[in-house]
Amino acid sequence: MISLADLQRRIDAGELSPDAAIAQTREAIGAREKTVGAFVRQNENASAASADPLRGIAVGIKDIIDTADLPTEMGCAAIYGGWQPRADAPIVMMLKQAGATIIGKTTTTAFAANDPTPTVNPHNTGYTPGGSSSGSAAAVGGGMIPLALGTQTGGSVIRPASFCGAAAIKPSFNLLPKTGVKCFSWTLDTLGLFAAGVSDLAHGLSAITGRPELLPGAALQAPRIGIVTQDFAGAPEAASGETLQVAAKAAERAGASVRTLALPEIIGEAWRAHNIVQFFEAHLAMAWEYRTKYDLVPPLLRKRLDDTRDITPAAYDNACAITYRARAALAEVFKEVDVLLTFSAPGAAPKGLDSTGDARFNQLWTLMAVPCVNVPAIIAEGGLPVGVQVIAGVGDDAKALAAARFVEDALARR
Amino acid sequence: MISLADLQRRIDAGELSPDAAIAQTREAIGAREKTVGAFVRQNENASAASADPLRGIAVGIKDIIDTADLPTEMGCAAIYGGWQPRADAPIVMMLKQAGATIIGKTTTTAFAANDPTPTVNPHNTGYTPGGSSSGSAAAVGGGMIPLALGTQTGGSVIRPASFCGAAAIKPSFNLLPKTGVKCFSWTLDTLGLFAAGVSDLAHGLSAITGRPELLPGAALQAPRIGIVTQDFAGAPEAASGETLQVAAKAAERAGASVRTLALPEIIGEAWRAHNIVQFFEAHLAMAWEYRTKYDLVPPLLRKRLDDTRDITPAAYDNACAITYRARAALAEVFKEVDVLLTFSAPGAAPKGLDSTGDARFNQLWTLMAVPCVNVPAIIAEGGLPVGVQVIAGVGDDAKALAAARFVEDALARR
Repeated sequence: MISLADLQRRIDAGELSPDAAIAQTREAIGAREKTVGAFVRQNENASAASADPLRGIAVGIKDIIDTADLPTEMGCAAIYGGWQPRADAPIVMMLKQAGATIIGKTTTTAFAANDPTPTVNPHNTGYTPGGSSSGSAAAVGGGMIPLALGTQTGGSVIRPASFCGAAAIKPSFNLLPKTGVKCFSWTLDTLGLFAAGVSDLAHGLSAITGRPELLPGAALQAPRIGIVTQDFAGAPEAASGETLQVAAKAAERAGASVRTLALPEIIGEAWRAHNIVQFFEAHLAMAWEYRTKYDLVPPLLRKRLDDTRDITPAAYDNACAITYRARAALAEVFKEVDVLLTFSAPGAAPKGLDSTGDARFNQLWTLMAVPCVNVPAIIAEGGLPVGVQVIAGVGDDAKALAAARFVEDALARR
Repeated sequence: MISLADLQRRIDAGELSPDAAIAQTREAIGAREKTVGAFVRQNENASAASADPLRGIAVGIKDIIDTADLPTEMGCAAIYGGWQPRADAPIVMMLKQAGATIIGKTTTTAFAANDPTPTVNPHNTGYTPGGSSSGSAAAVGGGMIPLALGTQTGGSVIRPASFCGAAAIKPSFNLLPKTGVKCFSWTLDTLGLFAAGVSDLAHGLSAITGRPELLPGAALQAPRIGIVTQDFAGAPEAASGETLQVAAKAAERAGASVRTLALPEIIGEAWRAHNIVQFFEAHLAMAWEYRTKYDLVPPLLRKRLDDTRDITPAAYDNACAITYRARAALAEVFKEVDVLLTFSAPGAAPKGLDSTGDARFNQLWTLMAVPCVNVPAIIAEGGLPVGVQVIAGVGDDAKALAAARFVEDALARR
């Protein structure tokens, strides 16, 4: 993979010009794109900017995010083919102001839902890269680009990152503004970043937001880590179960205080409430597409919308009330531990391209609005990566990143 | 004014066809539009739908709200002239699904900020209709249409409603989805409705959201009303001071329990925090316009953005923390009273078209995410209306409407 922090260091030291960094990235894309298919389109006019701190850093933008210079097709050319937004989304402007180069638009499942793209897993082309941020995860995990934007409503950042062996962060809700990003559920949709490692995420997120407190600081000494297995979501496959054990043991050996936590019952209720919140809002957010372009909505999404037409306002209000109670309960949990450690996905990437995998170990944390980091952990059968998920309290993005770096270091030393 | 509830009743009774209702509305627009200038463009193809419950109801859409069949120019033709969105915003789809007829796009200050439109006050053409929802307030208050959509980030629904003599509701945050609505501040922007009276608002909001609990129910007997004068926002002009007294006395005579409340200090802090939240987010939300089209951003908005360039993430985080504490404190206040009663604006509409007025008595409540209703109350000098503002706790939109109806009835009987 291409390390953003390493590129920054070499550019700052004068070892590499920003233009050369962009040219190298283009070569890396050229070498793998035909196989992986991570891009909807590349920006032929892309050149390095001179602005710090991200000059020379090429970034891929998930194609549900508005760009003023490139079409934005929402993963659904049947409805949005050639659609050209007027303005850059705020997150794209933030990247540009930080000096990043928009290198292209990455593939997305239609409307960031479930219908797979043709993108393959860069580690084994017979497997899905996950979704919905398929191209962003595959491009970073496949060593094509140092930084990419994704979005998560269920598990669309953390899961594909785990499948593709990339680090990723879904920050606290609204840390990154989602104006100009196609809406599926306004309570859930959250922008996220993919990069090679946790330090790369920290440098990227700090640069985009202008928040120095997110930069990697001194290494944590003894974080208090709570292991959660999310039993309400069912059992994981062997690969993810093993990965969590490996990561927990490595963290303990590295000095963390590690214990298994049972989450309050209301949090399991919130896990179930996620789907109600998501699809009640999706029926409003996607009303134009669903009501006026029904036949053009791809089949998996259309079926999920068909199946959820009858969620009442009362059921939605109840799901929201459960959400608020669960968030308060989770805030109490974070008085006892610094971070939680859990599965990033049920297992390694599923075989084939018929499914992008299952968000059941991610959806709760999206609803809770908390920062989540995928740390690549092991390589399972077939060369497929599996990650673990580090989770902190709302607003504690710096702590989530610091603890994720602790786990990453611990895994590297095991 | 044209009463939505009255039109509904006559259509349901077969006294009026939906087509005839639309034709009557067209005539009302034709009679006044040349003077008032409430519309950016009218929908020449508009016809009545057959769907309940809003068949025959013509609605005006503020021109920062995406419409698939009509351009959406954001009140800034210099940047968005002729801009045609692909999709209807969810709120437009909700109106259509409820049977309403989109009759046209109403004027808005550029990006719903402060640069006035040419729209005049329908009660006295030498005065502003207020803003930013200028056309929606003027069209409803001027008796041209029975229903209109606005948005409020500071005071852009309640204030122009007060100036134009229309009833209006800014519902609880996110009750109406703002996807497809031009963003200024994602924490603050809230969709709202204008109609002739409080019952009309209730029928409209219930129809749009599919929530029968918002329909007018049995009259309230003895609501507990807290009078707040928002001293942190400065003194009102004589007209608004008098209006609040008149409304409080009328409510008391009608059986309400009325007392003056001092709000906790944190709430005054939140009033000051509003501007920080608003402009930190506006610099992100409007980054493309401000950074790439600077010379085309109209002058009042441009100056406000120039003046607020240096708000730091730390100042913003602090403003958000104050907001959360103030919301919790306000929730405690609503254990003591059913609703608050306060000024809708500093006074009657200011003279001339240089300013749309001041949002200082509205901004706190937008930040607090609570439902606010403007009830037209008195006619001041120059024939200019002045309203009062009824406010309930978050999610208590039905209570806000019921109490506003109580105040409206009390004022009618005085």
